[in-house]
Order: sequence, then C-alpha cells, then structure tokens
Amino acid sequence: MSFESNLSDIGITLPEPAAPVASYRPAVIANGMLYVSGQLPFIDGAIVTGKLGADVSLERGVEAARACGIMLIAQIKAALDGDLERVVQIVKLGAFVASTPDFSDQPKVVNGASDLMEQVFGEAGRHARSAVATPVLPLNAAVEIDAIVALRN
Amino acid sequence: MSFESNLSDIGITLPEPAAPVASYRPAVIANGMLYVSGQLPFIDGAIVTGKLGADVSLERGVEAARACGIMLIAQIKAALDGDLERVVQIVKLGAFVASTPDFSDQPKVVNGASDLMEQVFGEAGRHARSAVATPVLPLNAAVEIDAIVALRN
Amino acid sequence: MSFESNLSDIGITLPEPAAPVASYRPAVIANGMLYVSGQLPFIDGAIVTGKLGADVSLERGVEAARACGIMLIAQIKAALDGDLERVVQIVKLGAFVASTPDFSDQPKVVNGASDLMEQVFGEAGRHARSAVATPVLPLNAAVEIDAIVALRN
Repeated sequence: MSFESNLSDIGITLPEPAAPVASYRPAVIANGMLYVSGQLPFIDGAIVTGKLGADVSLERGVEAARACGIMLIAQIKAALDGDLERVVQIVKLGAFVASTPDFSDQPKVVNGASDLMEQVFGEAGRHARSAVATPVLPLNAAVEIDAIVALRN
Repeated sequence: MSFESNLSDIGITLPEPAAPVASYRPAVIANGMLYVSGQLPFIDGAIVTGKLGADVSLERGVEAARACGIMLIAQIKAALDGDLERVVQIVKLGAFVASTPDFSDQPKVVNGASDLMEQVFGEAGRHARSAVATPVLPLNAAVEIDAIVALRN
Repeated sequence: MSFESNLSDIGITLPEPAAPVASYRPAVIANGMLYVSGQLPFIDGAIVTGKLGADVSLERGVEAARACGIMLIAQIKAALDGDLERVVQIVKLGAFVASTPDFSDQPKVVNGASDLMEQVFGEAGRHARSAVATPVLPLNAAVEIDAIVALRN
C-alpha cells in the first residue's frame, strides 16, 4: 500500500503542478519540513471562481477544496523529485474560503481537501488545520490552501 | 513554579478539548514542534458568535480571544498526554478576528490570548503572532486562533 | 556578495524594527527556524492605510508590500543580533492584503515583498507563500506579512 497506489485506487491522475502566479516558489524544504505555497482550485484546467454564500454552492466549494488538495499533492510530489513516499506526515493545512459575510460553513468546504489527504496518505494524512473566510482570493478563486509536510530524510 | 500551577493561580480549569468540527486532527507533532488546529472561543460551553464592529464589543472580543487561548492550552495538554511542562516555547499564534470592514482593533482583541499565554507560560509564553480580520468564521465564531509550540524531547 | 551589501546596492537603509502593537514578540527562534510576527507597511514612518480596490492603488499596494518586506528584514536582523548573514533561506511569507470583495490582484501586490526578498537574499530569498485578502487589517494597514526563516546554526 503506497501513497501512489492510493492515488490510483481513487482514480486521481495528478495534474501538472501549477506555476506560481508571481515571484515565489511553489514549495521550499527546510529542516525536514516541506512548505507548500497556497494552491488554487483547478478543475479541468480552469480555476473554480466565485464566493461561497453567493455564486458557489457548498457542493461546488467542496469540489474546489478537493482540487486544491490535488494540486497540493502534485506540488509535494514535484518538490520530492517524484517520490511521494518520502511524506511522513501532512502536518498542517491552512485554508482560506472566499465567502460572503453570512456564510459560516468553511469547515464543510475544507473537508474536501482534508478527506482527500486521509484517502491518499491514510494516518499520515490526518493533519492539523485552520479554516477561515476571506472576502476574495487571488484570480477570484473560491478556495486557497497551503500546507506543511514532514519528510523522511 | 510550573505551568500547571500558574493555571491554578489564575483560576483556570481547562475544558474538555473540543473535537474537530470536521475531518482533521486537533494537533500534530512533527520534528519537535506541535501544530495546533484553529480553536474557536467556547465560554460556558457555547461558542462566542458574531463580528467585531457589529454585534461583538471589544471587551467581549478580548474574552473570546482568551477563550481561544484556553482551548489552545487544553489541546496542547491533551496532545502531550497531560504533561504541559513539556512546552518549551509558544512560538507563534495565528489569529483571525471576524470583523466588519471598518473595525481595525484586531491587536487589542487578540491580546486576550497573548496575555493569557504570558500569564501561564511566562517567558516561554511570549510568542510571535499575526492578527488579521476575516469577514466571518466557522460556526459564526468571533475569533479563531491556531498555534505552533516548541517541545522538550 | 553578502545580504548586507545587496541591501546597500539597492539603496535600502533598514528602519528601526517596529515594536509590537500589543503583547507579543516581534520574532521567536525555535529549532533553527525564525518566526517573524506580521509586519505592517511603514513608509516615511507612517503606516500605509486603506484598502486595495478602494482608496489604495495597485502601485501603492506594491509599495506597501515592499515596506512590509523591509520591516521583516529589519526584524530578522534584530532577532539575529545584527548578523543577517545567518539567514539560510526565506522559507515562507504569509501575506494578507486589505481588499474590497471585488479586488483579486493580491499576488501582484505581494510581489512587492517577494521581489525584494529575491533582490536581497538571491536564491535564499525565493520562498513559498500564501497571499489572501482580508476585509481590514490592524490600524487600517493596507498589507500585513509574516515570515518563517531558516537559520545557520
């Protein structure tokens, strides 16, 4: 049972890791920890845009969070030269949900990413997290999620 | 002078650590650091809801931030199998205050948690932090705070 | 080629590190990593205030983000007893841009800080980052940025 085979089992083909939309790196390794930049939700090559509470349904928000999770995994794999098995633990997800001021179901939205991490990494995928709202996100994305990951030496 | 005795001295009885409102862990240890998930403000068993600048006063916001801090300490203790003395340093608090767009006193609000950390952990409680606003928080909470803590081996 | 000489070359004189606006520390070192508190944008001694999408132009936002970056470097230097050369890597920037709900160019704004880090630290300045919006920031600041930095022993 490898993380790669779990990905296959649930039918996920990792996308090409998205290039940063600005002057920074998608991921940096320091002291055995991988810090992954905030990832936006790509589905079929396009960013899921809009806000929860307005033009994005809860169901679509969950899909967007899962898409952020898939892109996080793609970035993790790229940062590890293709060897996803070096992941020891998904330590922390930092999740931001574009929301109107009356939408407070951010946890349900972000579960789209959290559930994915457990499906792919099992116990090693069960992470700490924060989930908050933002009035808007880069490129009008519905969700942005960053990650901290502990690595095998 | 132990952290536990400081808690007693200021009259705090730690609550039962809140269960995650979704599929993640309250805290994860990696490489000697404890990452605690974002905690909501429970007072008398109920979440302090609303927004600063609207229906939550500055004074109530400070109480809410302190309540987040108490729940962070409860989570830290639970993650350390009850031994709070393994804390070396409260390293970083990440604080989010549900705010109307014209409320800019987030630092005063978050001091409710920062002051508590210093009262309980002394010099080891003096942390780095960020304090920002959000338009809304999960379950309509007034404040959410996460933490990074350095541990004794 | 030192980081200090790079600072000189681009004409930056570091300001006095800003005192925390509340009860916390500007920076904490733990396990070889420096955690810097969220820094506000000081230009000519005054905070750049307002919101992107309303009273702050994109160009002014970029300047504000750069000013946050300069203050981050001032805090890093102070935390390292004046020896900026102990920086191994700018690991992560966490950036918050005060925005109206229809402004989604946070990445362009935050590049003001990201570009600076690369100018000063070269390859060691190329970091992971997240960039999101907030409805408002402490003291009505336009931008707030925190940082994680890996250190030489």
